[in-house]
Amino acid sequence: MLPAIHLDPTSGAPLYRQLSEAIRDLIAVGRLEKGERLPATRELAGTLGLNRTTVSAAYALLESEGLVRGHVGRGSFVLGEGHTPGAGLNWEQLLPAPGLTVPAPATPDGISFSSSCPAEDLFPVEAFRRSCEEVLASPDASAVLQLGSPSGYAPLRHHLLDESRREGVVRPGDDLIVTNGCQQALDLIARVLVRPGDAVIVEDPVYPGLKNVLLKAGAQLVGVPAGVDGLDIEALERAAIRSRPRLIVTTPDFQNPTGGTLPAEARRAVLRIARLAGCVLVENDIYGELRYEGEAAPAIKEIDETGDTVLLRSFSKLTFPGLRVGWTIAPKALVARMAEAKQMADLHSDQLSQAVLLRFAVSGRLKEHRARILAAGAERLHAVLDACQRWLPAGTHFTRPQGGMNLWVRLPEPLDAGDLLARAQQEGVSYMPGRYFEVSRREPGALRLSFAALPPEKIRAGLTILGRVFSSELARARLERHEPAPAVV
Amino acid sequence: MLPAIHLDPTSGAPLYRQLSEAIRDLIAVGRLEKGERLPATRELAGTLGLNRTTVSAAYALLESEGLVRGHVGRGSFVLGEGHTPGAGLNWEQLLPAPGLTVPAPATPDGISFSSSCPAEDLFPVEAFRRSCEEVLASPDASAVLQLGSPSGYAPLRHHLLDESRREGVVRPGDDLIVTNGCQQALDLIARVLVRPGDAVIVEDPVYPGLKNVLLKAGAQLVGVPAGVDGLDIEALERAAIRSRPRLIVTTPDFQNPTGGTLPAEARRAVLRIARLAGCVLVENDIYGELRYEGEAAPAIKEIDETGDTVLLRSFSKLTFPGLRVGWTIAPKALVARMAEAKQMADLHSDQLSQAVLLRFAVSGRLKEHRARILAAGAERLHAVLDACQRWLPAGTHFTRPQGGMNLWVRLPEPLDAGDLLARAQQEGVSYMPGRYFEVSRREPGALRLSFAALPPEKIRAGLTILGRVFSSELARARLERHEPAPAVV
Repeated sequence: MLPAIHLDPTSGAPLYRQLSEAIRDLIAVGRLEKGERLPATRELAGTLGLNRTTVSAAYALLESEGLVRGHVGRGSFVLGEGHTPGAGLNWEQLLPAPGLTVPAPATPDGISFSSSCPAEDLFPVEAFRRSCEEVLASPDASAVLQLGSPSGYAPLRHHLLDESRREGVVRPGDDLIVTNGCQQALDLIARVLVRPGDAVIVEDPVYPGLKNVLLKAGAQLVGVPAGVDGLDIEALERAAIRSRPRLIVTTPDFQNPTGGTLPAEARRAVLRIARLAGCVLVENDIYGELRYEGEAAPAIKEIDETGDTVLLRSFSKLTFPGLRVGWTIAPKALVARMAEAKQMADLHSDQLSQAVLLRFAVSGRLKEHRARILAAGAERLHAVLDACQRWLPAGTHFTRPQGGMNLWVRLPEPLDAGDLLARAQQEGVSYMPGRYFEVSRREPGALRLSFAALPPEKIRAGLTILGRVFSSELARARLERHEPAPAVV
Repeated sequence: MLPAIHLDPTSGAPLYRQLSEAIRDLIAVGRLEKGERLPATRELAGTLGLNRTTVSAAYALLESEGLVRGHVGRGSFVLGEGHTPGAGLNWEQLLPAPGLTVPAPATPDGISFSSSCPAEDLFPVEAFRRSCEEVLASPDASAVLQLGSPSGYAPLRHHLLDESRREGVVRPGDDLIVTNGCQQALDLIARVLVRPGDAVIVEDPVYPGLKNVLLKAGAQLVGVPAGVDGLDIEALERAAIRSRPRLIVTTPDFQNPTGGTLPAEARRAVLRIARLAGCVLVENDIYGELRYEGEAAPAIKEIDETGDTVLLRSFSKLTFPGLRVGWTIAPKALVARMAEAKQMADLHSDQLSQAVLLRFAVSGRLKEHRARILAAGAERLHAVLDACQRWLPAGTHFTRPQGGMNLWVRLPEPLDAGDLLARAQQEGVSYMPGRYFEVSRREPGALRLSFAALPPEKIRAGLTILGRVFSSELARARLERHEPAPAVV
């Protein structure tokens, strides 16, 4: 028999819902056990002075939740499923579905074109060690180790603001916040500005870190085709009118994954479109300093008279990605809200790395390192372009960036870069298939080659192998295509 | 006259909405200018072959959006407000309202009881410097500076797992993820587990960092009264039955702000209640190592046979809060989803600090430092308790914690700790008024005193001043209360 149940007809909650909740509580605390039979609807309706349909509705609700099961002619029984009180949790049921798994990196002795990061063999460890030593020997050491500010370590903020003012990318109404790399800047912007359902325009293809953080914030992603010259401006204009975006996020220099760079004139067009649409323009300038050849175009932030462009930068691509230090320059009101969100996210960025990178910069060591990185990058870029030309099968297209870390390869049909990855990995070479970067355009033949972390000889060796894998598959596929079709039965 | 407008009766979108969107686009791109008159509804209905009420509905929608305004007898005019195409953005309109401002810290020569952080004067800078030197001289230096894993720096993860296994807080199904302090662990848990509208049970009062991150995730906070013995277990049981929580978050040792500690028996009760309710229990064990006196109770994680408890820990309170390194031990499925969320949030935690703190720990320097911190903490705890007893006005109540960094003071009525802060700050002393910690109980007389960062002489000096400010206000208020009431007119 059921323990006493009290419902409140004046509470505003429907009676069937009050009743189902009361029974759910009795199951949760173990007063109704698994296998126990609930009273017949007519009987319970009589006891509680309810209409019988109210009791039926409550039982139906419990059944829909998997807590009871009705058997025709026998009544309803407690299942106690969903959660068995006192037992362990069913984590798979509690948690959201997992995301897309990124391919495993190559084996240690393999060749990985998978990661858009700088070359470990070029890390100036000794210069970094000296910077660290100087910070910890200085009178500021204790303050560095103490609780800091969500906006960032003040001496680093001031240094970055001064440098950026000299460059012309800081307006009088701007401020700067230090983030854990550009990834966190995007996350904070999404938390502050993106509401579920908001349209956000991004390049298509675009790197998964950007796509995922916006999707998680509930954005509707609108992909605008991007190639070696960056965003397709006409498509951007149409998308901006049609989708009324909240944000446009673009990487104008050496975009990840295409390596594309937006020409100066197109930057003005992007700015004009963002202004007409009244949306926020985020300029993700993470690769801008890594130009190995050609002329730089001005940052969009620099040519924006309104000052509204949100500029993202980072030390991660030029120096050490293991240290998570990036920054955002944007109008004060936005920076203030990002600092609030940052305080909730993780209080503030690690101060040791902020202080050591500041020392690394002001000591002149960053400048020396940059010169070495640019020389090595130029060599690696030429190596990868030459090797693509030489080893990839005829009919392959690839972008020819002037800097950065990535290029975008389109294999001839019917090759599928995702399908071929396993074979390449068996031969010790890995890359990122295009599907990780898709927004709305499917490109099964596409893949990203990240070349900056590999010395030229490894680049050549890796592409020789990839060329062999792709060419042999292409030959096989073409042969198959010419086989007569099997009989239809 | 309006440019041509094309509506699609087959699109499924209501015609009035299609029409209003078309006009909105014309305003956005400047084809309809500010001040321009829209066609009369009858006229436009005729042109487009629509019902006149459809046109009226479209105009009403535009008016509700502030884009046009209707004048009786004169027609509707373009306002072009909301966003003026081509002009700068209205950031205050785009951004959410700012949060509660935290009181400014005391002046540099003042005495601040406001921050729950360790004493800077006790930082072992030299031992830290040696640890840093050793890491950067080791063959691992380059790997530390290179891109890392969202789960954390592997050698640190393994060290922490080994230590925690020895302590008995790791179950076979558990894993560990490194976070930017416990604050980020809470943020990742909220992202993964909390859906808008979910009830989450927290202690009342509780520190703002915990409250805000859960509220931002859309949680309905359910406060359960907590005092020097931690959570009120009966109230917790009632709240768990009534609110069907998704999470219970508790700080069982030296809770912030009360300093309260949950006795061993109550820990078992919390576990039982969480298991009955089928919700996730988060044990925020950030202060547990800072016990200055008395016997430690086992961690809830240790006595949880199911292994479901989620244990949060950090280096920030024992060592250097400027380095953001904490960790979570929890069932593998949860840790895997937290790592996904971490990758979106900021890729991974700073590796330099992870590697140096690992070296600081395995070199034995952490143990030495802990001994000094515990000795100093005991001295400071006694100083603050003695000074509260001696200087705060009669009728004041305060918790008597056995460790941690905070105690909770309740001033006698009618004192309001929030109102009195400005006077205390004028005299060079700051603290955090109770309102920053409220969940549902208002306690105007309450305040938090964070004592661990201050040497005993500053604690005594600060409380002498606070005692004077509070006592003089109390005398004034009591005098006023005895004045005859003014005439009612």
